Amino acid sequence: MIAMQKQLLLDTHKRILPYIHNTPVLKSRSISKIAGAELYFKCENFQRMGAYKMRGATNAILQLSGEARSRGVVTHSSGNFAQALSLAAKSLGVKAYIVMPTSAPRIKIKAVESYGGIISLCEPTLIAREAGSDKIQKETGATFIHPSNDDEVILGQGTAALELLTEIPDLDTIITPVGGGGLIAGTALAAHYFGNNCRVIGAEPFEADDAYRSLISGKIEGNESTNTIADGLKTVLGDRNFPIIQKYVDSIIRVSEDEIISAMHLIWERMKIIVEPSSAVALAAVLREKEIFDGLKVGIIISGGNVDLEQLPF
Amino acid sequence: MIAMQKQLLLDTHKRILPYIHNTPVLKSRSISKIAGAELYFKCENFQRMGAYKMRGATNAILQLSGEARSRGVVTHSSGNFAQALSLAAKSLGVKAYIVMPTSAPRIKIKAVESYGGIISLCEPTLIAREAGSDKIQKETGATFIHPSNDDEVILGQGTAALELLTEIPDLDTIITPVGGGGLIAGTALAAHYFGNNCRVIGAEPFEADDAYRSLISGKIEGNESTNTIADGLKTVLGDRNFPIIQKYVDSIIRVSEDEIISAMHLIWERMKIIVEPSSAVALAAVLREKEIFDGLKVGIIISGGNVDLEQLPF
Repeated sequence: MIAMQKQLLLDTHKRILPYIHNTPVLKSRSISKIAGAELYFKCENFQRMGAYKMRGATNAILQLSGEARSRGVVTHSSGNFAQALSLAAKSLGVKAYIVMPTSAPRIKIKAVESYGGIISLCEPTLIAREAGSDKIQKETGATFIHPSNDDEVILGQGTAALELLTEIPDLDTIITPVGGGGLIAGTALAAHYFGNNCRVIGAEPFEADDAYRSLISGKIEGNESTNTIADGLKTVLGDRNFPIIQKYVDSIIRVSEDEIISAMHLIWERMKIIVEPSSAVALAAVLREKEIFDGLKVGIIISGGNVDLEQLPF
Repeated sequence: MIAMQKQLLLDTHKRILPYIHNTPVLKSRSISKIAGAELYFKCENFQRMGAYKMRGATNAILQLSGEARSRGVVTHSSGNFAQALSLAAKSLGVKAYIVMPTSAPRIKIKAVESYGGIISLCEPTLIAREAGSDKIQKETGATFIHPSNDDEVILGQGTAALELLTEIPDLDTIITPVGGGGLIAGTALAAHYFGNNCRVIGAEPFEADDAYRSLISGKIEGNESTNTIADGLKTVLGDRNFPIIQKYVDSIIRVSEDEIISAMHLIWERMKIIVEPSSAVALAAVLREKEIFDGLKVGIIISGGNVDLEQLPF
């Protein structure tokens, strides 16, 4: 587990700040009214490449030695982390090898290409992805960077909550979506060290509720199926982030697909900002369990805004 | 024509500021790169009720006497001004009577209702709208407020550019969409008094190019048809705003429907903000006539973000 020192988060933030945006915190009078709570949206959809993953990817590369950087980095991802690692690497003059499944949407492959990622396509199974990335590591000496189960990635993702708490220090709760666990683990560390008794709650689709079940069973659970529109939340926790989540996360709220779509529609309609389904999961959780948040100051991490505009659910 | 004094705009801004948002100015690295110019987006899609029209409506009501306010205000509009007048009136404890055509989208009628507007439906012709609003004026003594051809409305709309120029004083050009002429006339006054040789350019669909033709002919021209997705730009100029436009607006650029949709898609995709088609017309004009804007600092008024999410063009 990460050496839990406040200073680590501050150093991380200072390290990555030249390469990321300190994103705005927005409020919505009408959504706060609907929720019965004072909501603060940390808008990582306005982050570079459209998601918080830019933070962790940048930090992981910056922590490599000069020699390691010269050999490049590699990951397997079909989602935002592929884009984040590509753009972070490009900003730092490093090669990024990205293993993507042949099933990845054309739009995501094109995005990775546009950020300069070097793509290898593989069969859409975890085994094929890992084999593809192992092969690249052996051939090039590139360093493997995991999208969520990596200490430097976790610290990087935690800087979003660090910025949020710097701006709104007296939040009662921060809620984030839970996918691979990097965002919520980093958020939990930031809330622990920089919050004022600030609770952290996770939000997850019923259709991919591995974190909910993992916290109950005390071990990392998988998902039998992941039939959710929140495509960023299909992954499972890892051994680096799970202990942090166990220690510092209060609870996980699960939401239905209808609740996710309806929360996404509400944010688009009232706030005029584009958020991806995975981000809407956090607001959906607040609206589902209103009594928990009644009258509180609640921070919501809007994780990203990368949506295929031709494939909207409404 | 308006008495053209710098002070009038400053007074207007001070008057309405408690009731409106000073909206953010956003930049987009990637869209500026595509345009070959430094673009500053004044985001009136984040304005209260989602459009700049809140400014003019608020100012028009605030300039009424207490007695006139007690009798209420009336307008005919199927679009953003109906919502703006309703919300501005509600904020100020004034009744707003709104004459809307039976053809108005259900979503717009519901929005006006939600802001407390008192709706009268009429046949979808200008004659029926005017008759409906005349009748209400006679019966209630309410003051008619025109959506764009009213000095106080024009001054109110000009405060968006005033805020933009306060934040970015050295803009070379400001570009706005042109519908009824209130926004561009107010913007032209603000640029004249507060800009540093800042040009104002209008943007209009080819399908509703009345302002373009009016500037050529020297008189207010109508539209034979208005087959455009930019539903806020179907109206024509008026005798209060046309002289200001003639005097202070540099030129009008016309764009195709495809260019509007493509600019709207670009803003949604890259900036992660929701803008309505009428707003995208301004960026479409910059992208169509790149050589005019090459290397310049260009302000773009994003007029609003009220879109029916179930009826998107992509």
